[in-house]
Amino acid sequence: MAHKDGLKIAVIGGGSSYTPEIVEGFILRYEQLPVRELWLVDIEAGKHKLEIVGELARRMVAKSGLPISVHLTLDRRQAIEGADFISTQMRVGLMEARKWDEHLPNLHGIIGQETTGPGGMMKAMRTIPVLLDIAKDIEELSPNAWLLNFTNPAGMVTEALDRYSNVKSIGLCNAPIGLQKWLSKKYDTPASRIYSEFVGLNHLHWVTRIEVDGVNRLPELLDKREEYSGKNVPATEWDADFLRSLGGLPSYYLKYFYMTDAMLAEQLESLKASGTRAEVVKRVEDELFELYANPELQEKPKQLELRGGAYYSEAAVNLMDSLYNDRRDIQTLNVRNGRTLDFLPEDASIEVNCVVTGQGPLALPVTRVPEQTKGLIHAVKTYERLTIEAAITGDRDIALQAMVSHPLVPSVGAAKRLLSEMLEKNKPYLPAFFKS
Amino acid sequence: MAHKDGLKIAVIGGGSSYTPEIVEGFILRYEQLPVRELWLVDIEAGKHKLEIVGELARRMVAKSGLPISVHLTLDRRQAIEGADFISTQMRVGLMEARKWDEHLPNLHGIIGQETTGPGGMMKAMRTIPVLLDIAKDIEELSPNAWLLNFTNPAGMVTEALDRYSNVKSIGLCNAPIGLQKWLSKKYDTPASRIYSEFVGLNHLHWVTRIEVDGVNRLPELLDKREEYSGKNVPATEWDADFLRSLGGLPSYYLKYFYMTDAMLAEQLESLKASGTRAEVVKRVEDELFELYANPELQEKPKQLELRGGAYYSEAAVNLMDSLYNDRRDIQTLNVRNGRTLDFLPEDASIEVNCVVTGQGPLALPVTRVPEQTKGLIHAVKTYERLTIEAAITGDRDIALQAMVSHPLVPSVGAAKRLLSEMLEKNKPYLPAFFKS
Amino acid sequence: MAHKDGLKIAVIGGGSSYTPEIVEGFILRYEQLPVRELWLVDIEAGKHKLEIVGELARRMVAKSGLPISVHLTLDRRQAIEGADFISTQMRVGLMEARKWDEHLPNLHGIIGQETTGPGGMMKAMRTIPVLLDIAKDIEELSPNAWLLNFTNPAGMVTEALDRYSNVKSIGLCNAPIGLQKWLSKKYDTPASRIYSEFVGLNHLHWVTRIEVDGVNRLPELLDKREEYSGKNVPATEWDADFLRSLGGLPSYYLKYFYMTDAMLAEQLESLKASGTRAEVVKRVEDELFELYANPELQEKPKQLELRGGAYYSEAAVNLMDSLYNDRRDIQTLNVRNGRTLDFLPEDASIEVNCVVTGQGPLALPVTRVPEQTKGLIHAVKTYERLTIEAAITGDRDIALQAMVSHPLVPSVGAAKRLLSEMLEKNKPYLPAFFKS
Amino acid sequence: MAHKDGLKIAVIGGGSSYTPEIVEGFILRYEQLPVRELWLVDIEAGKHKLEIVGELARRMVAKSGLPISVHLTLDRRQAIEGADFISTQMRVGLMEARKWDEHLPNLHGIIGQETTGPGGMMKAMRTIPVLLDIAKDIEELSPNAWLLNFTNPAGMVTEALDRYSNVKSIGLCNAPIGLQKWLSKKYDTPASRIYSEFVGLNHLHWVTRIEVDGVNRLPELLDKREEYSGKNVPATEWDADFLRSLGGLPSYYLKYFYMTDAMLAEQLESLKASGTRAEVVKRVEDELFELYANPELQEKPKQLELRGGAYYSEAAVNLMDSLYNDRRDIQTLNVRNGRTLDFLPEDASIEVNCVVTGQGPLALPVTRVPEQTKGLIHAVKTYERLTIEAAITGDRDIALQAMVSHPLVPSVGAAKRLLSEMLEKNKPYLPAFFKS
Ligand SMILES: [Mn+2]
Ligand SMILES: [Mn+2]
Ligand SMILES: [Mn+2]
Ligand SMILES: [Mn+2]
Repeated sequence: MAHKDGLKIAVIGGGSSYTPEIVEGFILRYEQLPVRELWLVDIEAGKHKLEIVGELARRMVAKSGLPISVHLTLDRRQAIEGADFISTQMRVGLMEARKWDEHLPNLHGIIGQETTGPGGMMKAMRTIPVLLDIAKDIEELSPNAWLLNFTNPAGMVTEALDRYSNVKSIGLCNAPIGLQKWLSKKYDTPASRIYSEFVGLNHLHWVTRIEVDGVNRLPELLDKREEYSGKNVPATEWDADFLRSLGGLPSYYLKYFYMTDAMLAEQLESLKASGTRAEVVKRVEDELFELYANPELQEKPKQLELRGGAYYSEAAVNLMDSLYNDRRDIQTLNVRNGRTLDFLPEDASIEVNCVVTGQGPLALPVTRVPEQTKGLIHAVKTYERLTIEAAITGDRDIALQAMVSHPLVPSVGAAKRLLSEMLEKNKPYLPAFFKS
Repeated sequence: MAHKDGLKIAVIGGGSSYTPEIVEGFILRYEQLPVRELWLVDIEAGKHKLEIVGELARRMVAKSGLPISVHLTLDRRQAIEGADFISTQMRVGLMEARKWDEHLPNLHGIIGQETTGPGGMMKAMRTIPVLLDIAKDIEELSPNAWLLNFTNPAGMVTEALDRYSNVKSIGLCNAPIGLQKWLSKKYDTPASRIYSEFVGLNHLHWVTRIEVDGVNRLPELLDKREEYSGKNVPATEWDADFLRSLGGLPSYYLKYFYMTDAMLAEQLESLKASGTRAEVVKRVEDELFELYANPELQEKPKQLELRGGAYYSEAAVNLMDSLYNDRRDIQTLNVRNGRTLDFLPEDASIEVNCVVTGQGPLALPVTRVPEQTKGLIHAVKTYERLTIEAAITGDRDIALQAMVSHPLVPSVGAAKRLLSEMLEKNKPYLPAFFKS
Repeated sequence: MAHKDGLKIAVIGGGSSYTPEIVEGFILRYEQLPVRELWLVDIEAGKHKLEIVGELARRMVAKSGLPISVHLTLDRRQAIEGADFISTQMRVGLMEARKWDEHLPNLHGIIGQETTGPGGMMKAMRTIPVLLDIAKDIEELSPNAWLLNFTNPAGMVTEALDRYSNVKSIGLCNAPIGLQKWLSKKYDTPASRIYSEFVGLNHLHWVTRIEVDGVNRLPELLDKREEYSGKNVPATEWDADFLRSLGGLPSYYLKYFYMTDAMLAEQLESLKASGTRAEVVKRVEDELFELYANPELQEKPKQLELRGGAYYSEAAVNLMDSLYNDRRDIQTLNVRNGRTLDFLPEDASIEVNCVVTGQGPLALPVTRVPEQTKGLIHAVKTYERLTIEAAITGDRDIALQAMVSHPLVPSVGAAKRLLSEMLEKNKPYLPAFFKS
Repeated sequence: MAHKDGLKIAVIGGGSSYTPEIVEGFILRYEQLPVRELWLVDIEAGKHKLEIVGELARRMVAKSGLPISVHLTLDRRQAIEGADFISTQMRVGLMEARKWDEHLPNLHGIIGQETTGPGGMMKAMRTIPVLLDIAKDIEELSPNAWLLNFTNPAGMVTEALDRYSNVKSIGLCNAPIGLQKWLSKKYDTPASRIYSEFVGLNHLHWVTRIEVDGVNRLPELLDKREEYSGKNVPATEWDADFLRSLGGLPSYYLKYFYMTDAMLAEQLESLKASGTRAEVVKRVEDELFELYANPELQEKPKQLELRGGAYYSEAAVNLMDSLYNDRRDIQTLNVRNGRTLDFLPEDASIEVNCVVTGQGPLALPVTRVPEQTKGLIHAVKTYERLTIEAAITGDRDIALQAMVSHPLVPSVGAAKRLLSEMLEKNKPYLPAFFKS
């Protein structure tokens, strides 16, 4: 990217509770990443939140004294036009839809999770058409922009963008950076002296090499079972024998696959105690917006960190910085496979280490792919690809094949019953499935 | 294979109840496949059965008037020496071991099956070391012989032979030929006018193209759900919507994966009613041997067809005939993948159509691989490869990874408990796991 | 292909001197391949020859007493409509163009050959647009027809058809069948007992395995240097040391690459003695047409065999027979690479053994690819792909890259001069290069 | 590599005229790369030079005041033992052998070049066995050391080391860094703001992307034909049309392939005027050693830069620095292909951009591989692989196949005559070919 006076950034889903994080990120990184215009855009239904969070953003910028202009709009095209970077963080169907993504599978004795399984599938089918629509605007209005996609399920959404649009897009998740921060703290070593190699898909990765200051720490980490976990996944303990021979530190999302019984039990119990996770998160969010609305507040409140999206802003700003400045550092991203994993199609999205150049990320070769990861990666990728096809075509048969293909779905019969219920519940968000 | 006076055949596990089938096959095909010496070899524990079935074989040959000499022996090396074709059909641990392969998983609410899942894994770990031992004898005593492996789990055993010996081996199953016979009968069309393309692994294939006299019959077959099934798998009906969009006619073994709940229910019920399938089969076998022992009997008794191994002999004799006569016809076999399925390692065994030349089978390219088959194929192949590694190393950690990798195993916890029990029960047959 | 009453065949370039061969083929194979209508089509400039050869065809059919109707036409679309098989054998620019293909390179001290090097490149650029035009008619008028392409350079033309049309096309050459006949005669063994494996491209293959009745004869053949050669390539002797270690019996066309100096000397000498090969061939053809015109002649004259296209008819009829009857025999054809040669793109045309099924040919895996063949195959394929691109775009820069890439072209300077002359000479046949 | 007190470096071929360069490099980079012991090792025949250059090295270190100890030895094993980095820069057969590498081909009208063609082949066959011998010592005495190979032909030597030893080796050439310096100067832009992507093999690369401060400069560079060239290759001008459509800036070594006629003419003329290039270089070297012997000299003399190995030291020290400090910067290196170029074997050495981590270099994906480069790359790689096989086996047949495979060798006949002469001339250095 050629240097120029200042950057235009568009944040789609700008009314999100996460927005103060990224605003803080832009302020702190201003010298490397000179943002001139920040456009926060949302839909009509999110207007109220957009105004609250937008006013907070303006107060934060004002306090910083930096020449960044903050724009709030419901006109997506205006925000996109001429943008250098566009980030998306949205929730089609809002928390209500998420609630059913989690709840309906539970009612059938199946894991309810918003980024994988039947829940992730519904979310993908609601979201992909919307993102492809945004992509069309970008193709027209800012064809050279980079689209940074945080919208979950980030792996499927990124693959859909890569295969069905011409936009330069990259998928992002805060789990890899979180793990690296955790390692850095644990070994009291700067991240630049830690090399960790990620293999897999979004929310389905294994860290197969960890060298801290040149020393291989993976065996020790597997042996000790010291846990890095996200806020949104229960901290059930791994089996020691299993972990030792797994060949890589598993993403905490892998607990859904390896300890399905315990995780399901936990979900059902937690459901009884405090409702769906969607409802819990909604309460946290409501509290956050109450804080945001306070006109005295001029910075990101500490409570946001409890929300579950730690380092989200850092990941985004790091990536923009490296793209803008051709930094060529290594970041863990969701990108087109190419020839990285030899058992997946070249156009599959995967989550691996990349060198981020000014022309985009280049996936690094993976040096170790434990045999035991391959079947699971491919099983989930099969579900992902069929889900993308279903999202685009609105074909119920393909949707059934997608759901059956997911390792957490026990049988065709269960899939068929659950799919029927979930499609019905998501009717307003699935026009392709309900053409008149 | 250069023409010569007559062939030496060794049947390892020659005391099997199936042996009269293959003897009949050699008699009927004598003109094309001139067998001079037929060696039936078995272990000490099978001596009695070997004698019964061996005497029947002699009476059958005598009746035919052909110059085939039948040899019975417990000395495997003598049988192998100088052989042209060696076939194996054995059951390490006998029916007793099979009983536990099926029963122990059932006790944990898991499918019990002797060729896949935890049961298939145990059978593979008992069998692979024995077959590799036989392979060593062949390398020494008849290095140019073809080894036709019918021993289940045929896919894993064949892959182990390919990767860990220099013997020319081919894996065989009667399911593909059975399906082709079924199609031929159904459409009243000779097999030579039916083209069916198989994709997948042993006991995990899909027939992705079926052309009868040039007409594509696959959609119709999927639509009608007319069932081809083996004797050994319950005939539960497929879901119509699911089948229609599956993209290939599934092997009946795939019911274990797609209708796990119904199949498990059926297993538990049948267990209550008539004991394990092993026990049922044992009763059938005992009756067969009673028949065989009758000195009046000079031919294969009709009752053998009820046993479940239909066309087994035809498959074996077809293959030997084509290898011997360089027939270049198409047969569905278990062979090294090479570059046939692009998502599996080159040294994985797969079950696909091959042209059988005098120099061995050449796998044909597959022209359609439905997306929905890939994840499941890869998941099961992962289990297979880890199982082979466990069989050879006797490493319990790898065995745990293998069992966890199987799609029918619900969690690490369940795998760990079941593995421990099953290893203990198989102790006499797993020296690599129980080194003193 | 479903059985039906009788077949419609269209021969494009039907006025060729080869036509009596294929007519004879249809007569002899009538029982297996029931031709009902034979359409010979040619362009205005070939009308006279078409009539001569067409009348001969009619006399041949009449003599046979078979119910085949022979149609002569200049209306290509009428011939194509509803055809089952279409074969092409044409020479865009006629013998005159071929003369310059051979002569102009010679003037620069470069091999002049009509199917490779600068000459083959010009022929490809003249021919590909015409064939793609024919393909458009087939897509519209007989989309299920098989196009059998004999038009040289058959490798490039076939690849262009495969990549730039939706027609089902197969490339054919008489060299492989010629070699097999030669082996069969040499070893007095029917072709069905000889297995020969071809690796490479059209006019650039090596036979890497030759088993006669199960015995490997390749070392002996390489050692003895007994020569199989086409009529159209001088019979210079191979170097014994070189041949022994080459790892495969080379196509006689490979002499242009391996003995460039001797072959060039031979061309220059022969040019002095009898003019270009084009002129020699023209004289032979003129004599043939004189024979054909004789109203007493009712069969293919013996003299046709001297023409150089031996077995051309047999290759064509064999292929149609196997496609029509789903014979599943092995033939050496020019087809899409797929995953056969791992170092070429999947859409490259290659010349290898195929099983010919009713649904088309399936390329067999190659079991031996000598290291020493790879560089040359890839170098020529690079030239071929750039030539195809130049033919379609009319881009002189790409044409220059194509010519420079050919191993027989010594330098950029030489290529540039020669290209310029050759483009000019071919102006009437290269509209894409000479847009006004 | 874990941090430790200081490093042990062994320079094999330490008596080379280049050594003062690398000594200077170690002095300048001391803070990042703390060398404790520098071992210069050479063979008996090079003892005199080793002493001269070794004394100079000591004076240079003394002047710097750094605590680096300089050791001179003829005992290779002592130098290797416990080393952290080993670099090799040697010339088996000395300048005399190079003279014949260049001269003998010229006598047959063939390019004489010490790193490609027949000359490069002889050099590889002399050198590879020696390097593999050194590798054995490293495997035993410093198995964790990195071997940095500058010894030409660096591509073939590196591939041989990778395939036939367990040593961690990397091949290096000064041409890529030279090109980058040239771009940096030309555009007055620091290297960190220039991204250049290399595709190909050692001395056979194309730079297929050049972005200077985010702007694509490749079309302009190709258009202007502004020349970057090495000291050792004549500066003949590229053809403008050809260069424009080549798709990448070619290595100056590619002139041997694209302008063979002009380059050969230049060689023959220069031979007449000043003898072989070997002789010219020898004169330069003699002068250098005269300078080095001056006890007043305490630094690298300016004249060394005329020698042709500019940036050699910088390349070496950059690489050691990044390996030691896990810098993760991008360097252009000769490494194992892996899955980078999809048309070459995974174990082929290629010259591409790599990220240099503490665990070694990771080859970056190539984003553009112009069609026109592939054939030539594969042709030369074929020659390289056959040459390596010949070097190891001493098989004359394979050597003949290797030489024939090289694009600069016109025919089998020429190859056979030349090979015979060259083998004879190199007899003392080719024990594998001349076993008694
Ligand atoms: Mn995430
Ligand atoms: Mn079976
Ligand atoms: Mn031909
Ligand atoms: Mn170099």
